This record gives sequence, C-alpha cells and structure tokens, in this order.
Amino acid sequence: MHSHWNDYPTIQNKLQVVCSFLEKQLNVRNKDIQQALIDFSQAGGKYLRPAFFFLFAEIGEQEKQNEEDLIKIASSIELLHMATLIHDDIIDDSPLRRGTMTIQSRYGKDIAVYTGDLLFTLFFEVLIDVMNGSPFMAMNAQAMKGLLLGELDQMHNRYNSNQTIDDYLLSVNGKTAELFWLACLEGAHFGHTSPEIEALAGDIGRNIGIAFQAYDDILDYTSDESTLQKPVLEDLTQGVYTIPLLLAKAQNSAAFEPFLRKKGNLTEEEAKKVASLVVAYQGVEQAKEFARTYTEKALADIRRLPAGHARDQLERLTRQLLARNY
Amino acid sequence: MHSHWNDYPTIQNKLQVVCSFLEKQLNVRNKDIQQALIDFSQAGGKYLRPAFFFLFAEIGEQEKQNEEDLIKIASSIELLHMATLIHDDIIDDSPLRRGTMTIQSRYGKDIAVYTGDLLFTLFFEVLIDVMNGSPFMAMNAQAMKGLLLGELDQMHNRYNSNQTIDDYLLSVNGKTAELFWLACLEGAHFGHTSPEIEALAGDIGRNIGIAFQAYDDILDYTSDESTLQKPVLEDLTQGVYTIPLLLAKAQNSAAFEPFLRKKGNLTEEEAKKVASLVVAYQGVEQAKEFARTYTEKALADIRRLPAGHARDQLERLTRQLLARNY
Repeated sequence: MHSHWNDYPTIQNKLQVVCSFLEKQLNVRNKDIQQALIDFSQAGGKYLRPAFFFLFAEIGEQEKQNEEDLIKIASSIELLHMATLIHDDIIDDSPLRRGTMTIQSRYGKDIAVYTGDLLFTLFFEVLIDVMNGSPFMAMNAQAMKGLLLGELDQMHNRYNSNQTIDDYLLSVNGKTAELFWLACLEGAHFGHTSPEIEALAGDIGRNIGIAFQAYDDILDYTSDESTLQKPVLEDLTQGVYTIPLLLAKAQNSAAFEPFLRKKGNLTEEEAKKVASLVVAYQGVEQAKEFARTYTEKALADIRRLPAGHARDQLERLTRQLLARNY
Repeated sequence: MHSHWNDYPTIQNKLQVVCSFLEKQLNVRNKDIQQALIDFSQAGGKYLRPAFFFLFAEIGEQEKQNEEDLIKIASSIELLHMATLIHDDIIDDSPLRRGTMTIQSRYGKDIAVYTGDLLFTLFFEVLIDVMNGSPFMAMNAQAMKGLLLGELDQMHNRYNSNQTIDDYLLSVNGKTAELFWLACLEGAHFGHTSPEIEALAGDIGRNIGIAFQAYDDILDYTSDESTLQKPVLEDLTQGVYTIPLLLAKAQNSAAFEPFLRKKGNLTEEEAKKVASLVVAYQGVEQAKEFARTYTEKALADIRRLPAGHARDQLERLTRQLLARNY
C-alpha cells in the first residue's frame, strides 16, 4: 500500500483489504492481461477515493455496518476509476502512468480498450453483488455517465481557445468531481450516518474533486517529469486548456493567441514558452487560489460533521491535498 | 426500420418503438456526438437480437407482460451491442460499418472510446430502470463480461497459427453467442413463459449465435466489399483466423504456413491468395457445414417450443440466417 497512508493506520488496513479484493476480482483467462491489471491496481495508486469512502463510513453507526459490503463498495469505486484511467491513457497516448508503463503502451490500444471495458463490467458486477435493488444502483450509473460526459466535454473543447472557466468547471465536475462525490456519499450512506451527513458528504466530495483536479492541472505547469511520473505539459500539447492557462489567458489573451492558434502543431519549445507565460501572467498563482476556494468550502463543511477521529482525519487528508508537490 | 422485417409486421412495429426509445436515450450535451450515435443506431442495423427477444416474449403469457418494460429490455440489448461495435471498430480501424462511416473514422478513436463507454452506461441505466433487484441484473453483467472475455481471447490468439477450433469456439461463445443467449433468455423470462422454455431459449440463442458468427466469417471469404458494406478479408489481414481458414488449414497446414508466417505483413495480393486456398481446401464448404450443425441444433430446439405464430416466425427467421448472401 502507498506510503501516503502510513500516518492513517486504520485506513491503511482497509485499503490493503481493498487491494486484495481487487486482485481476486481481476480474473481473466488471459494471464498476461490479468497480471497487467493486477500490476496496475497495485502500482502506486493511492486509493484516494476509497479512503474518503472509509472515512465517511467511520462517522456512521458501526454496529449497523457490514464490513464486507463496505470493502466491496470501496473496491467498486476504484474499479470505475481504474477503467477510466485505462481509457484516458488510450486517448492521451500516454506512455507512463504512476511511473509505470500504461496498459496502452505495454499491450497496445486494442487490449487497452477491452480491459477498460472489462473493468467497467467488474464495477457493475461488484455493485450488483452488494446493492442490487438499491436506489444507489442508479446513482452509480449516473456517476459513470457524468464522468463520461465530462470527458466528452473536455474532448469537445480541445484546442478551443474560447473555452471559459464555466466550460472547465462543467467538464471537471463530471470527469473528476463525480467520483469523489460518489465515494463520500456512498461512505456516508452505507456507513449508516444520517441523511444530513449524506448531503454534506456529497458536497464535500464534489468540492474536493474540483480542488483535486485544479491541483493536478497546476502540477502540469510546475512539476518535472520525474516528480510527476508522467509527461509534463501533456494536456497543453493535446489542446486541453486547464485552469492555470485559462486564468493567465484572461490577463492577456493576445500573448497566448499566436501559440494557441497552432493547435496540435505546438513544438516542445513553444509549449515551454506557453508554460512560462502561464506563470508570468499569474496563472499558477490564481489557479492555486481557485483550488484553495474549493478546498476551503470542503473544509468548512467537514467542520460541520460530528467531532471525532474520522472528522480529524478527513480534515487532515483534505489539507494534505493542498500540500502536494508544486 | 430495416426492410428485412417487412415480412414480420408485428416484430417490425416493436423494433420501430425500440428505435424511437433508443433515440430518446441517446442524449448527450455534445450535439455532434448525439447525432452520430442516433445515426449509428438507425443506419441499417437489423436489430436482430431485439427481434429474437420479442419472438420469445410472444410465446409467454401476454396478460402478465409489461409492454414498456419489454421495449426497454430489448433496447438495452441493442445498446450493449452498439457499444461493442463502436469499440470493435477502434480495434479494427474500420472505416465502414453498415455501409456508413464508423464513429472511429468520423470522429477519431478518442470520441469512439468514450461514446462506446457511454453506451455501456446507458445499457446499465436502462437495466437498472427496469429490473433493479432482479437476478437478471447479474446475468446481464455476466453476459457483458463473457462478451469482453471472448474479444480478449480473440485478441490473444491473433496471428497464432496454432489456434484450434476449440479456441475459436471459446471466443465466439463469448463475443457473439453471449448476446443471442441473453436476448432469447430475457425474452422468455420477461415474456412470462416457463422455466423449461427459458432454458430452451438460452440454448437456442447460443446455437444461433455460433451459427451467425460462422456465417459472418464465411462472408469474409466469399463476399465483395459492396455486398458486405465493409472491407473484406479484414479479419485475415488482422490475424483473426476464423472457421473457414481453420478448417482449410486442417487439410493442408503446409500450404498456409508461408503466408501465416508473415503475420501483419501480408500484402493484399497474398491475402487474396490465402482466401483462394481457403476455398480450394474446402474451408468455406466445411464452415457452412459447421454453421449448419449449430443452426440445426437451434431448429430442433425451436420445434420443441409451443406451436404457434411465434414459433413459426422463429423458425423462419433462423432459416433465413442460413440464406444470407454467400
């Protein structure tokens, strides 16, 4: 399990069980692909969404909880996440993810398409096993749909230099925040908290998700490849204009125009020039401020949760998201 | 609706309702993609699986049936089918499907990956709407999984000249027969027939599926591009060795060896040469015999169904599958 959780021993134990459960689920006749999926599930992923799930569950009435069900639900969230990562890597043609080769680069896009599909199926299989008949079945399908519509929005806006902050938010709300929303909401629900806490959990998840994505987008402009464990400026060169760029461009659109007009033909040199313009026009600073706003919203809501160990851990974990390498 | 159904007016009407229902489901913020999906759902697809579904439902107790639910379930099967077609076309890099451009060739693989994923979600969304809590939820997930494992098997066996008929059957059982199995079984179940008829329906579907795939594979060796509405010998050049080739190769492995050894480097000329060898060594004739065996199994089981309009139509439709253009 990722060293990130050394300071969260209860969560670490549960995530370890999720990891073992996933290994058992990833059962494919083709043993190469099975091993690739198991490697992928264990290769440095933080299991951040399952962690939020368990922290919200911890707030609920322990005696009403079914530990096995909670493990399965947490795993289903990670399966959905893994499926979207594998398909994202096809689109990005990414050679690296979490510091190791992507399924796409190791086995080709053909295998990557079907293994991603297979994980979507396993996601539903686990859900059906644990909550068939529950209204949460529909909420899970809705989350998956929101996630994909967010990805399609992002795709649609590629190389669109007229993209607005609202466009960005709509896409991020789907592609990233939807899964944090689901993880927190399901944790609160299946942990037997209360309807009030469930509503709060959903809001907290959504705001954390937006902040999380914004920080991720900031890293693209401030990090180097060895720290990031994936190529830098990848989004920019692929026409995905994220919050640091959008905010910098709002300061001086004309400075960016000659570069963005080149669309897919931006050289590495030019991409670096755009990145330095983003910094020069306070894009990174403002994006940090943007992310901070959402983190503060989440923290304010976290403080409205019942006091205790879980709330303290939630607050700490959320603050840590603010202190990532940049 | 496809002219194929002009002689089946009751089925034609129901498939028309499925078509309208699908159009309403294909609701995407990006209107280009929405239109592409609607076009795809209406562009010459025969809705063969929904047709089998309705014919089996017709055998059941009409007064117990919920017409709206039946439309939704039939639509869910077509959604799953469409999703897999879109992802297949990414893998095959197919320019054409049903005589029109594929989503992949029209919008690129990026959009194709996510639109396929979106259809998988819509598949589950419709299922959850109509049968949340039913054990058929798990059977649907199982069918989708079987389908993908079949595709992965096929992928795994690409350019493998040691592939056996059993390997082929294992893959076809998943990638094609699983969906016919599901369509017939669900028709019988949600049409309120009996457990005996349900079991028979599943078997019939599976055998029809295998025969259907075998005929499809035969067409690849006997048809021309304008009849097929997609490139011919596509499977062969992509290393997918289907039943006509496998049976011909069993007659004289040495004749094929120099060609198959070239794997992905087979020229168009050489592919045509392989195709003529397949014909020369009775690969097509034997494959027809192979397909006929499965069709006869299905027909024998169909004759065990209660006599009546639906059974007659089922028999006729199944016989028609034998009379496709080759």
